[in-house]
Amino acid sequence: MRIRAAVLEEFGAPLVVDDLDLDEPKAGEALVRLVACGVCHTDMYTASGVDPSGYAPTVLGHEGGGVVEAVGEAVTSVARGDHVVTLFSPQCRECEHCRSGKTNICTAIREQQNSGYLPDGTTRLSRDGEPIRHFMGTSTFAECTVMPEIALAKVSPEAPLDRACLFACGLSTGLGAAMYKAEVEPGSTCVVFGAGMVGLGAVAGCLLRGAERIVAVDPSEERLAMARHHGATDTWAAGPDVVDRVLDETGGFGADYTFEATGRVDVMRQAVESARMGWGLCTIAGVAGRGETLDVVPRLLITGRRVCGASFGGVRGRDQVPELVDRYLAGDIDVDAFISHRITLDEVNRGFELMEAQDGVRSVIAFD
Amino acid sequence: MRIRAAVLEEFGAPLVVDDLDLDEPKAGEALVRLVACGVCHTDMYTASGVDPSGYAPTVLGHEGGGVVEAVGEAVTSVARGDHVVTLFSPQCRECEHCRSGKTNICTAIREQQNSGYLPDGTTRLSRDGEPIRHFMGTSTFAECTVMPEIALAKVSPEAPLDRACLFACGLSTGLGAAMYKAEVEPGSTCVVFGAGMVGLGAVAGCLLRGAERIVAVDPSEERLAMARHHGATDTWAAGPDVVDRVLDETGGFGADYTFEATGRVDVMRQAVESARMGWGLCTIAGVAGRGETLDVVPRLLITGRRVCGASFGGVRGRDQVPELVDRYLAGDIDVDAFISHRITLDEVNRGFELMEAQDGVRSVIAFD
Repeated sequence: MRIRAAVLEEFGAPLVVDDLDLDEPKAGEALVRLVACGVCHTDMYTASGVDPSGYAPTVLGHEGGGVVEAVGEAVTSVARGDHVVTLFSPQCRECEHCRSGKTNICTAIREQQNSGYLPDGTTRLSRDGEPIRHFMGTSTFAECTVMPEIALAKVSPEAPLDRACLFACGLSTGLGAAMYKAEVEPGSTCVVFGAGMVGLGAVAGCLLRGAERIVAVDPSEERLAMARHHGATDTWAAGPDVVDRVLDETGGFGADYTFEATGRVDVMRQAVESARMGWGLCTIAGVAGRGETLDVVPRLLITGRRVCGASFGGVRGRDQVPELVDRYLAGDIDVDAFISHRITLDEVNRGFELMEAQDGVRSVIAFD
Repeated sequence: MRIRAAVLEEFGAPLVVDDLDLDEPKAGEALVRLVACGVCHTDMYTASGVDPSGYAPTVLGHEGGGVVEAVGEAVTSVARGDHVVTLFSPQCRECEHCRSGKTNICTAIREQQNSGYLPDGTTRLSRDGEPIRHFMGTSTFAECTVMPEIALAKVSPEAPLDRACLFACGLSTGLGAAMYKAEVEPGSTCVVFGAGMVGLGAVAGCLLRGAERIVAVDPSEERLAMARHHGATDTWAAGPDVVDRVLDETGGFGADYTFEATGRVDVMRQAVESARMGWGLCTIAGVAGRGETLDVVPRLLITGRRVCGASFGGVRGRDQVPELVDRYLAGDIDVDAFISHRITLDEVNRGFELMEAQDGVRSVIAFD
């Protein structure tokens, strides 16, 4: 079939919306017609050419929400008509990692996905007979995509897909960091560094877990106002004095849980140093620049602080994205508040510009 | 009463064995007659003057085993004749930390202890009427000491105190790091960096927890032989290639648990980088130099590795040191193998020399 899709032709240049060919789903795969797709930092990061593992041409996009239009052989978990959220982080339920119960990092198709291929090592995308590689196993800046069923979360059909799509990446990463990775305990004190999509999700996740005090830290007053909306009890301007202030306001001990959602290693260090003596857990969710390190004073570890990180917030996509969407439907998460702009596929580059200008939190592409 | 004790008179100079005065125990305190005391790195570290929080004069020593000779008012947990191991890491069972169940770092007397005083802010040690400060709340390089009862672990009288004393610090730190902090799971692959007292204890702890593969890494073939004796299944020479070798031998994933017991930040980094993708836990047990940092590549955290540390191996002294001593009595831990030299109090400086020369693992002072 012919589809329109936003193609990364050349690093550092705007995406080009073009007509491509999309093959039918093979065994274990499904054809999904996209209804909406968020524009995320990772798309822009790859488009910029900074990511050394990036490649072009490819169809970007990974925060997709859509409807299954057809399935290949042996597909059992989704069927035509199902509403789905696309998962760059699949869940095969069979590999050693999935069976371990200790991680959400499925290894079943990791290698092929990272190289731009579907599990059988080929692509469904092409142009004039030339294969075009997939991106993050998703390639959802397109009217339709073909994906492995293990990378599709079947969600309630009651959830509008232009909201549900945000659970495909940033929002779930933040919510999951608090709910599934850190497993924040009721009554806790939490500090969230960064109030973008991931940080705001972490604030919301801390609230859902019953945290008593949730401090959001960000340079932008506008984002701090959003943090208050999502549950922050305190909002502080970012700066070098934040660690001292956390210690001052916690009797010298620090916060039970800290979250880093900026990707800056100096802020990661603040997050570690703000964690509580004895048992404070610092969860790193931001993606640092290549070659940068988080420098930890070992004494902080010896005296009980712990450091971990979360890819996709530790969320097991097929099991837990539907749960999170249900929490949204139950009124527990105000997803609408994250959507600052609605754009068309042809306006995808505007989505990057808005993100670069830190204008709003999320642009969502609506497909016709 | 008059006691003989090894006094740190001046940083960088040999300890001086001298006659001091020891007051009777006050409320909540006990008088302990030492039977044996291990010579530990922390004693030497303080004697060297490198520790910025050190002070002199003071009576060093903290790996003590002895018999309670008298108790002050309101002492309920130990009585005259009880065999005890001294705890530089007390357990009051009442402070927020002790009640939390999340940490072994008791805060009840932390401030006074760190300043060299007993909980009431005074000392029991003096010379010619001049107070002499205690060290680590223990000061066990002495015939007798007065300590708070919350810092005494009552152990089985069947355990020879010249062995039991090793549970006062290094051995418990290693055992505890594996057993109580990391809580190594049966069937795991573990890598222990450093095969001194703490590292060997960690090897023994991994074995007690049912680890399947225990790799010990150390520059000394002699120590690696000891590691084999205590349960290591593999022993590797330390070097820059260790991380690659761990990854090679674990299908590219890394070890379920890694332990650092050297105090070197470059080795700590190896321990982090050897931990398994998905769920590997790196436990830092060594004490780094002032101002040094452990540099962590954040991507390693995002992909599931975790970093923590352990003071006294996470051991809750009054509850768990007696348990560990019972494991020794049951034949599960070969404590004798750790004792390389037996010396007298007058030979305490020789204990430091042996340690500096890395001659054997532990010197134990036997009191008459």
